[in-house]
Amino acid sequence: MEKTNSRLDQMKQFIDKKTFDSPSPFSHWLKPIIKEVSYGSLKCEFTIRKDMTNPMGMLHGGVSAGIIDDIIGATIFSMDLSHPFTTINNYIDYFAPAMEGDIIEAQTSVVKLGRQIINLQCEIWLPSKKRLIARGYSNMIRIEKP
Amino acid sequence: MEKTNSRLDQMKQFIDKKTFDSPSPFSHWLKPIIKEVSYGSLKCEFTIRKDMTNPMGMLHGGVSAGIIDDIIGATIFSMDLSHPFTTINNYIDYFAPAMEGDIIEAQTSVVKLGRQIINLQCEIWLPSKKRLIARGYSNMIRIEKP
Amino acid sequence: MEKTNSRLDQMKQFIDKKTFDSPSPFSHWLKPIIKEVSYGSLKCEFTIRKDMTNPMGMLHGGVSAGIIDDIIGATIFSMDLSHPFTTINNYIDYFAPAMEGDIIEAQTSVVKLGRQIINLQCEIWLPSKKRLIARGYSNMIRIEKP
Amino acid sequence: MEKTNSRLDQMKQFIDKKTFDSPSPFSHWLKPIIKEVSYGSLKCEFTIRKDMTNPMGMLHGGVSAGIIDDIIGATIFSMDLSHPFTTINNYIDYFAPAMEGDIIEAQTSVVKLGRQIINLQCEIWLPSKKRLIARGYSNMIRIEKP
Repeated sequence: MEKTNSRLDQMKQFIDKKTFDSPSPFSHWLKPIIKEVSYGSLKCEFTIRKDMTNPMGMLHGGVSAGIIDDIIGATIFSMDLSHPFTTINNYIDYFAPAMEGDIIEAQTSVVKLGRQIINLQCEIWLPSKKRLIARGYSNMIRIEKP
Repeated sequence: MEKTNSRLDQMKQFIDKKTFDSPSPFSHWLKPIIKEVSYGSLKCEFTIRKDMTNPMGMLHGGVSAGIIDDIIGATIFSMDLSHPFTTINNYIDYFAPAMEGDIIEAQTSVVKLGRQIINLQCEIWLPSKKRLIARGYSNMIRIEKP
Repeated sequence: MEKTNSRLDQMKQFIDKKTFDSPSPFSHWLKPIIKEVSYGSLKCEFTIRKDMTNPMGMLHGGVSAGIIDDIIGATIFSMDLSHPFTTINNYIDYFAPAMEGDIIEAQTSVVKLGRQIINLQCEIWLPSKKRLIARGYSNMIRIEKP
Repeated sequence: MEKTNSRLDQMKQFIDKKTFDSPSPFSHWLKPIIKEVSYGSLKCEFTIRKDMTNPMGMLHGGVSAGIIDDIIGATIFSMDLSHPFTTINNYIDYFAPAMEGDIIEAQTSVVKLGRQIINLQCEIWLPSKKRLIARGYSNMIRIEKP
C-alpha cells in the first residue's frame, strides 16, 4: 500500500499544470511542471529559458543546482513529515550540457530515510537525447521544535 | 607582482557598478555587484530578492548554489586562460540562513591551479552578522580544442 | 552482448577466493573477496576486523571511504580501458553503522561513462540487516600519455 | 584566551611521540605522530608505508580519505564536547600524488561550529615539495542521548 497524505493529494492535482501555487518564490522562477509525484519521489519538467543559461547558451550549472535543491525540498514537503527539514549540504556531478529551449526532467528519490537525516538524490535528464545531464545528493536534517 | 590581463582590467571597471555587461544570462538575474577582483579571486555583493527565497523567506539553497557556481565561473573567466573550462562537480555546505532584503557577499579563491583541473572555493557571508552562510567547492576541467 | 576482456576474465577466476593477486597493496590490507564482476560493476565482500574500527567498535568511516575508493579503482581496472585513470574527487554519505565481525558488501556501478571522465558510485551494504551503510561517488579522469 | 580541557592536555603530552594510546584501532594502523593540537585544530604527520599505496606506488586515495576522516574525528574528540558526534558525509578533492616513503602532514580546522552540526576541513600536505595533496570536508552531527 502506497503512503499518501493531503499534501501529496494536493500536488497530484497540479500534474501537467503550467502554474501551481508553490510556496517557494524561487520555484515560481524555475516554473516546474509536475509530471509524477508519490511518497518520496517527484518528477518535474522544466523548459530552459535564456535567463537559465551560461555564456555558451547552455543550462547554467547554478540553475541545475537550483532545480535539484528546489525539487528535493518539494519532495520533503510532499512527504508531510511531522517536523520541517533543512539542507545540510548538497553534492552535484555534471555530465552533459542541455541548451536553451530544451525540455529537461528532474526526478528525485529517497536514498535513506533516517529519523533525523533524510538523504535524497535528484537526476536531471534530457529525454530527447536519453541523456543524463546531472545528478545530485542532499542531506536534509530535521529541525527540532524549540 | 600580481598577474593581470585585459579581462581583469575590464572587470575592475565594473567595481561597484549596479549593472555590467556579463556574458552570462543567469548572472544578469543574480545581479552581482563586483566589489573586488584579482587573479583567481572575485568578491561580489548580492541583495536577496523575494524571487531568490524559499517558503520560509530565506535565501533559497538553490540560489546560494547558483551564486557559487556563477562566480566561480566568472573567476575562471577573469583569469583569461588559454582554454575554456567546464564544471565537473560542485559541493556545498550550508551553515546559516539569510533573509529577503539581506545583502550577502560571495568570495572565490583558487584552492589548486592544475594544468588540466582547477579547484576553486566560494564562501558566502552575511557581513551584517559576520556570519558564514555557505561554502562550496568546484572542480573545473579544461576543454580540449577538437 | 556483454563486454568482456582479459582482465575481467582474470578477475572472474578469483570469485569467492580468500586471496588474490591484487596489484594494490592497500587492497591486500582490506582483503576483499570478489563476489561478482562484470563490465563496469564489481561486488566484493569484506569482514570488519578490529583494525578497521573506530573507538566505538564500529566500522571506521575512513575504512568505508577506503573500501569505496579501492573498489571503484578496481572497477576501472577491470574495464581494461586504453588509458589509466586517476581520482579527481570523492563524496560519501554515511547512513548506518556496522560492527566488528560483520560481513559487508560493496558494489560499484558506472553512473556516466564519458570519454575523459568516468563517474562511478559504490554502495556498502550490511546484508544481514538489509541495511545501506554508506554510498559514495567518484569522478575519475583519464591520464593523458605524455 | 585559548580554550583548553583535559583531553587537549592529554593529547599535547603525545606531541612528537611515535606511539600513543589512541582509542581508535584504525588510527593505530595509520600511525599518526601528533605535531600540534589546539581547540578545534590538529596537525599530524604520517609516513607512507607500502600497505598504504595503490598499484602505482602512490598514497592510495582511500588511505588519504582514511587519514582525513580519522583526524577530523580526533579533532572532535580533543574538543571534549558534551555529546558524541558522528559523521554525516565527507567530500574530498585530490590534487597531487605522494609516494611510498614520503612524509605527509594532515591538518584540521573547524569551518563552522554549530550546536547540532560541526563542519571541519582537513588538508594533507607534502611538506618536502610544499604541495597540497588533498583537501576534505566533513559534517559531524551531535548524537542525542536517548
